[in-house]
Amino acid sequence: MKLLCDIGNTTFTFYDGKKLFKKSVNSFEPSSIKEKVYFISVNHDINKKLFHLSNWINLEEKIDRSKYYETMGVDRIFTSKAVKTAVVVDAGSAITVDVVKDGEFIGGFIYPGINAFNEAFENISKALKCEFDFKIDFNTLPKDTTSALSYGFLAGLKKEVESYNLPIIITGGDALKFQKIFKDSIVDEFLIFKGMKKVIDD
Amino acid sequence: MKLLCDIGNTTFTFYDGKKLFKKSVNSFEPSSIKEKVYFISVNHDINKKLFHLSNWINLEEKIDRSKYYETMGVDRIFTSKAVKTAVVVDAGSAITVDVVKDGEFIGGFIYPGINAFNEAFENISKALKCEFDFKIDFNTLPKDTTSALSYGFLAGLKKEVESYNLPIIITGGDALKFQKIFKDSIVDEFLIFKGMKKVIDD
Repeated sequence: MKLLCDIGNTTFTFYDGKKLFKKSVNSFEPSSIKEKVYFISVNHDINKKLFHLSNWINLEEKIDRSKYYETMGVDRIFTSKAVKTAVVVDAGSAITVDVVKDGEFIGGFIYPGINAFNEAFENISKALKCEFDFKIDFNTLPKDTTSALSYGFLAGLKKEVESYNLPIIITGGDALKFQKIFKDSIVDEFLIFKGMKKVIDD
Repeated sequence: MKLLCDIGNTTFTFYDGKKLFKKSVNSFEPSSIKEKVYFISVNHDINKKLFHLSNWINLEEKIDRSKYYETMGVDRIFTSKAVKTAVVVDAGSAITVDVVKDGEFIGGFIYPGINAFNEAFENISKALKCEFDFKIDFNTLPKDTTSALSYGFLAGLKKEVESYNLPIIITGGDALKFQKIFKDSIVDEFLIFKGMKKVIDD
């Protein structure tokens, strides 16, 4: 198996076909790796650096962006490539929701992640600071503050994602939390690497 | 008509039965008003000040909180009091959504307002800075960044609010913007004052 790397704003996540390992963007030196690395990156500073390292292969150059859209995050493109027919929920600092049918990208949207949503509430009023409860009852309208904030964060997102009536695949750092709210959803932490492998193999 | 006042974190909003007028919390001196003022307030600092002014009557003391919940914002209680059967959307710095049936408060939730949601996106990445588009097509999944962010902000909220199948009444500073996304909704900028008047009359 080839060495794959998904580069975000804060972390290099490597996958060697067996396990994941992470390195901090601030301290890791890409030139310390001598073998071939296939990567995708949303981090423009790192991209500039890697451009000069011939063993780092940018998989973004291998894809046809016209099937997606110009400014779409490369991570969303690769998780979408990993599925045939599904809604992909990537729950990280942002939550991206993308719909794929028969391998074709239909469209998707962006929602703030847990921390960003929490901060949004807290910046409005300190009284709106809370830890979101992923086990609230979505069949009853809230009558306490934590439920009212958790419901606000989650209920519309849940209704929207479930309205597509497609298999729900969740990935990203907060995948296990969101699995609690989406009925019959599957968590796949390797989804982006499956998309990368598919692009390499094609 | 009596003089009514709705006090927020930044503004005194007065209503004399004919027109609204606003004063800044930072510069307005409540003791400058000599006539009787019926008020509600979410601003605890102002509450302490007004406690010593006998012509400022706090309407919060006249209501039975057990029909709502302990920490529910007093503004939500009074807008809920103004309707018989409806979903009340108060679109301000936070968006509160409250359901009332036959005069009984059923429950409600809280969602970040336009600015807070915008900042939440921008804090994740500068690439997610945008002006929300309230005229997006909710029947098609987005394929551009502004639509993806606007859809993320609005689509789930719209689905949630419309799922109650109740008349939708919108109030608050951003009411006219949100009227665009809720079919057959009514804007009522005097809603909170109607609730206050009802409590005075009862």
